[in-house]
Amino acid sequence: MSKGSEHSLAAGIIRSDREMADGRTIRYYDLGEVSRTADDLRPIDAQPGIGEMRLDPLVNEWVPVASHRQGRVFLPPKELCPLCPSHGELLSEIPDSSYQVVVFDNRSPSFTAPIEAFNLPDELGFNTPDIAAAGKCEVICYTDEHEGSFGELPLSRIRMVMEAWQDRTREISQLPYISYVFPFENRGEEVGVTLNHPHGQIYAYSFIPPRAAKMLEAAKAHHAKTGRTLMADVIAREIKDEIRIVAQNEHWIAYVPYAARYPFEIHVAPKQHFADLAELTPDVADAFPAIAKEVMQRLDGVFGIEMAYIAAWHQAPVREGRDLMRVHWQITSVRRAPGKLKYLAGSESAMHVFIMDLKPEQSATQLREVKL
Amino acid sequence: MSKGSEHSLAAGIIRSDREMADGRTIRYYDLGEVSRTADDLRPIDAQPGIGEMRLDPLVNEWVPVASHRQGRVFLPPKELCPLCPSHGELLSEIPDSSYQVVVFDNRSPSFTAPIEAFNLPDELGFNTPDIAAAGKCEVICYTDEHEGSFGELPLSRIRMVMEAWQDRTREISQLPYISYVFPFENRGEEVGVTLNHPHGQIYAYSFIPPRAAKMLEAAKAHHAKTGRTLMADVIAREIKDEIRIVAQNEHWIAYVPYAARYPFEIHVAPKQHFADLAELTPDVADAFPAIAKEVMQRLDGVFGIEMAYIAAWHQAPVREGRDLMRVHWQITSVRRAPGKLKYLAGSESAMHVFIMDLKPEQSATQLREVKL
Repeated sequence: MSKGSEHSLAAGIIRSDREMADGRTIRYYDLGEVSRTADDLRPIDAQPGIGEMRLDPLVNEWVPVASHRQGRVFLPPKELCPLCPSHGELLSEIPDSSYQVVVFDNRSPSFTAPIEAFNLPDELGFNTPDIAAAGKCEVICYTDEHEGSFGELPLSRIRMVMEAWQDRTREISQLPYISYVFPFENRGEEVGVTLNHPHGQIYAYSFIPPRAAKMLEAAKAHHAKTGRTLMADVIAREIKDEIRIVAQNEHWIAYVPYAARYPFEIHVAPKQHFADLAELTPDVADAFPAIAKEVMQRLDGVFGIEMAYIAAWHQAPVREGRDLMRVHWQITSVRRAPGKLKYLAGSESAMHVFIMDLKPEQSATQLREVKL
Repeated sequence: MSKGSEHSLAAGIIRSDREMADGRTIRYYDLGEVSRTADDLRPIDAQPGIGEMRLDPLVNEWVPVASHRQGRVFLPPKELCPLCPSHGELLSEIPDSSYQVVVFDNRSPSFTAPIEAFNLPDELGFNTPDIAAAGKCEVICYTDEHEGSFGELPLSRIRMVMEAWQDRTREISQLPYISYVFPFENRGEEVGVTLNHPHGQIYAYSFIPPRAAKMLEAAKAHHAKTGRTLMADVIAREIKDEIRIVAQNEHWIAYVPYAARYPFEIHVAPKQHFADLAELTPDVADAFPAIAKEVMQRLDGVFGIEMAYIAAWHQAPVREGRDLMRVHWQITSVRRAPGKLKYLAGSESAMHVFIMDLKPEQSATQLREVKL
């Protein structure tokens, strides 16, 4: 088996694939001439087998059971960080001694490739049997520097991360068992981050996740009623109301949504319709880094501390609702004041009713007033 | 206006209502002859006005905005606890110098009684205007002792708490603007508890909460397909599989559900059909305290520490699905090991896909093996 291959992407970026010791793939995304030939010299560990998903009949939702993940690494010190490049004694997940952006298959994945042909049951209900936890889990490292954060990356690097997201969405969408691709980042120990090195993840599900399914349903209903796409109307309202806008440029707008659920919640959406990241045109992708960096800096600036957040790319499903759902980036933070977090307690957790402590207009004003 | 009234309930319990200084009502539930005449001697604070709810058009869900709650009391020391009985200098929420069980209107409510006739819009969508946050929020104190927990209450006291839940469900269900009554308890700072005194809450919503709506939908589909009620089949499977049962008696069964979402999740359900707490017959209510106490003790016993939990009563909506949805008590804990919490990160929070780290059979075994 060939151990490497190269692809040219947009914006002068080259992707070099290498096989890891245990058969996983690592993809280096590089700007400029870089040769990626380092081998993964670690002893080969057995990869965990595929997990299973069970149907929760009370709500007809899948629950993946990934009991092999209990023992994963928890906040290792810098000298043992598996996301730093390999150097000296440390043989990390990245064989090379430096890198720009890398994406590799997750070592403790919640979802993996199915062994045989995979089909979800047509109809879900009480007697639906367990099914293989088919899907794909990848890790994306934004930089080989252990300290730092997404918002502190140079604009050119954020552009490379965007290219990697686009590339992964495009490629993973072609897998027949994938229905939904979800790039996201958890930052901060408050949201359970187990590795501090600046990185994100990509989960690709074999089903449309419950929240995306509900968004698709709302988008369909809106289109049936008005003939328009929901996100176009949502963005038109934000532009008209103005008060909740946090930042904008020619191609993107960032706003605190009209009915935000978290003390600090920002949506960043393209002004034209694109179903997912793969569809973004180069000019739109080029305009993303500036607004992304501004939003992250405003978020950290509100209280002058690194805000814990979840940054989630909502996309259209791979084969449905492509003309109805628009890609957008949702950043939510549970920090409501210095020293105070919002917790998902009874109402939020058991009933999915989120009680907002701050008016969206108020948090938008706080975000806008941050001096950059 | 009369300042007090008395009602006889089941199990020899007397409820005495008193008006608080700011017009709220406090209800004392007592076993035996107790006269409740203490006045609320605090200066009258203005009650907050009614908040508003906004529709999140991306998923057609209501988001109540309760920005007046930001300043609420946070983990006060025992001598300033607003849930302890009034004594000496301390004028608390409970005017009397001792109590058994009390329920009073929440001082910082997320929902309040509407000022005028209240109707939800027939159809939800992008242009749905804001609406008053109609509903009711109450606090239930299980004991006048500041230390302790629900699971440490004597059986006779748990029976009184059950009677109070039943009474409140029955009475609140009669309010024309209420669609769903939700008694719950958050325990532990890990789930954001702001007062340590053993207590729970009751939220009554003017709409069917999103999760309950989804449960109703699944129950309807199951009934249409099989002619049976979903929870009857769920419980029959738990009894047949046996491996996930944590405790049972003549009228109740406690089990880790087949597709649990949390490292420790226990459902406690009546073996016969009851739509809500108000419908439980006295013999079924009498059988609850023993299993409730056992379940809580097993939960605390797993790691030998007080487990943080959310204990949520799922009921049928007030005017819909009464023959399809069965009342049950869902206890969920985010503690997956000593020193380790499960966090709701990207997949759970943004996509509603819960990745389970423990097999339900494994956590059920751990719970059963606890020596009581």
